[in-house]
Amino acid sequence: MEGLDVGLKAVGAGLAMVGAFGPGIGIGLMVQGAMQGIARNPDAAGAIQTNMILGIVFAEAVAIYALVVALVVLFVL
Amino acid sequence: MEGLDVGLKAVGAGLAMVGAFGPGIGIGLMVQGAMQGIARNPDAAGAIQTNMILGIVFAEAVAIYALVVALVVLFVL
Amino acid sequence: MEGLDVGLKAVGAGLAMVGAFGPGIGIGLMVQGAMQGIARNPDAAGAIQTNMILGIVFAEAVAIYALVVALVVLFVL
Repeated sequence: MEGLDVGLKAVGAGLAMVGAFGPGIGIGLMVQGAMQGIARNPDAAGAIQTNMILGIVFAEAVAIYALVVALVVLFVL
Repeated sequence: MEGLDVGLKAVGAGLAMVGAFGPGIGIGLMVQGAMQGIARNPDAAGAIQTNMILGIVFAEAVAIYALVVALVVLFVL
Repeated sequence: MEGLDVGLKAVGAGLAMVGAFGPGIGIGLMVQGAMQGIARNPDAAGAIQTNMILGIVFAEAVAIYALVVALVVLFVL
């Protein structure tokens, strides 16, 4: 049963990337809120944009954690 | 049981792409907010469009992480 | 147990397409927002349509990533 470990590594990396769907939804929710906020009060667009980018960075970091684990599973393990 | 590793790679790549449904929903949510914002305040359409595209880029990046892992599983592993 | 790898490829391609339901919901959400926006403010219909199509293109791209992985699993692997 040679090669089974390689196949299971592939399954593990795939499972890790399932975790990327949360940040995808989360970024959508925060930008949705920012868009509605800018529409309601365009004068606050600068502050909204700054905080939106701050939030995106942290959510993106979660997706990058999943990516890092997937790549470690594939190349380091 | 030769070929089992190839089959499991296929399963792994498929699992990685499951992670793509989050960005899909997320892009929908943020564009939904942008559409409602532009309708409420068309004068802010410029700022809303800029930030919408910024958000889409980050969400798309999450989908591309999943795609990269899937392609690495298929062709590099 | 010959043919197991072929069966697992089928499972992998099927799993990849599970990722397509996110873009499906996402496109629905953004068009929902656009419809409500045009109803609220028909004068903004032009700007809303432009941005709606822009958003659809990015969400559709996510679905196409899943399709590409599924086809690669089936025919290239």
